[in-house]
Amino acid sequence: MTRVAIFGYGNIGRAAEQAANAAQDVELVGIFHHDELSACLNARPDVVILCLPTRETQHYAITFLEQGISTVDSFDIHTQIYDLRLSLMPYAQQHHAVSIISAGWDPGTDSVIRCLMLAMTPQGGITYTNFGPGRSMGHTVAAKSIPGVKNALAITLPKGQGVHGRHVYIELEEGYRFDDVKYAILHDDYFAHDETQVELVTNVEALNTTQHAVNLVRNGVSGTTCNQQLEWNMCIDNPALTGQILVSTARAAVALTSHGQFGAYTLPEVPPIYLLPGDTEQLIRHIV
Amino acid sequence: MTRVAIFGYGNIGRAAEQAANAAQDVELVGIFHHDELSACLNARPDVVILCLPTRETQHYAITFLEQGISTVDSFDIHTQIYDLRLSLMPYAQQHHAVSIISAGWDPGTDSVIRCLMLAMTPQGGITYTNFGPGRSMGHTVAAKSIPGVKNALAITLPKGQGVHGRHVYIELEEGYRFDDVKYAILHDDYFAHDETQVELVTNVEALNTTQHAVNLVRNGVSGTTCNQQLEWNMCIDNPALTGQILVSTARAAVALTSHGQFGAYTLPEVPPIYLLPGDTEQLIRHIV
Repeated sequence: MTRVAIFGYGNIGRAAEQAANAAQDVELVGIFHHDELSACLNARPDVVILCLPTRETQHYAITFLEQGISTVDSFDIHTQIYDLRLSLMPYAQQHHAVSIISAGWDPGTDSVIRCLMLAMTPQGGITYTNFGPGRSMGHTVAAKSIPGVKNALAITLPKGQGVHGRHVYIELEEGYRFDDVKYAILHDDYFAHDETQVELVTNVEALNTTQHAVNLVRNGVSGTTCNQQLEWNMCIDNPALTGQILVSTARAAVALTSHGQFGAYTLPEVPPIYLLPGDTEQLIRHIV
Repeated sequence: MTRVAIFGYGNIGRAAEQAANAAQDVELVGIFHHDELSACLNARPDVVILCLPTRETQHYAITFLEQGISTVDSFDIHTQIYDLRLSLMPYAQQHHAVSIISAGWDPGTDSVIRCLMLAMTPQGGITYTNFGPGRSMGHTVAAKSIPGVKNALAITLPKGQGVHGRHVYIELEEGYRFDDVKYAILHDDYFAHDETQVELVTNVEALNTTQHAVNLVRNGVSGTTCNQQLEWNMCIDNPALTGQILVSTARAAVALTSHGQFGAYTLPEVPPIYLLPGDTEQLIRHIV
């Protein structure tokens, strides 16, 4: 049994709870809010699944690693992933633990797909990651911060070749004119570079969804042969998938630990078979 | 530099040659027909890329592993992969080498995708691998072996949910009636269970192609959330992709060796990042 604790209990924490309970080889030793650190440490899990806001991940990862407890997280600021890995590495190595970072779907499983695509067609191609249609957390927060916006939802639309459009649905604060607020949104740095539509609605919550989608596509060259067409598509519930991948990754953290491979990893650095439960022989017979 | 030798020089050997020459971190130390074993051993490659008929793979893999030379291959009899891994394991471990087997696209990269799909949606789904349209080597050989068939080409057609149809194009030997030969094909064990069409043509070679395709699809459950839709599509030149994956996998064999992880592996047991050239930091910044 892999003994996991969930630390942080928002959308992702709840999804990780469901995934942990559904896994017969995983024992959920506790769910802890981020002010329950000592209780979580006392539960002595093999792995803590960090379900925190991305910017709080590093601090708590170090705290658990220093106690020799492995961690997994879905840290999602792409430009800071390598630095996070580097900062956790010495703590994981010194305390004989493993930290697998950015283990959601992007970064995460999409990163593994991009890695495979590049290995299959190293030359002459561009890998396009097309997100959506689905809710963008970052753009929703940006729209909500505009003066006059009472509530907002920003949907990311894939326009192909890695270009994205935005549909922003807003409710208006009293005393504001829609045209002024729309102008402010369109000129905000989050939206100024993308094709953006702003629409006034009476009830943003009625439109809300946790559905998301991705289309990852590469048309590259194997050896000297061009036009090798590779494509990955998903249409999924976003927190449910993230929570599930975190639980599967907790298993991989234990596998790496049991092989003495202490350190901090991103998902493409982890043997994919470690994500699955059960016996290697059966897995190879079943999936390879 | 990864020093590779190519052993066997058919379609796959030629494609591996092109992929090795295209890779700046790979040095191709020689290409050897399977009667040039001692010359290949004398070249002292880090890794031998076995481009042999599947049934000859085990014998030569053991021969090279016994000399402490790592191997990669694209052994493709799905039901015998685990046994091949088991048989190579002691030779690889004893002689401090690595053998990565069944490292084409199916088995191979498709196996990694199936592994990821299962990690993302472990419950409530079936993973369907739909091949084609493309040439089936096995069915082509089976059709050619029917008395009265002068030349044949069998195309695999995806019918969805893992069900496949067959289109068989044949040239007829003199003195045979098409209806009799067609009857024999339709009742051959290779074709009797699939929706099969047989067509008489004047020139099979004019139809020949090395193009193939796959559609891998899973609609499963993450935690307790159903309808998580995952899909992988490829439309590719078959030997070019296989040769390329073998060269990328040679790199991974060297990486595992340098970490002292001697043994026999299938592709889902290998960290995907090992398939790529270059510096870990740059790779993580670029693909994760």
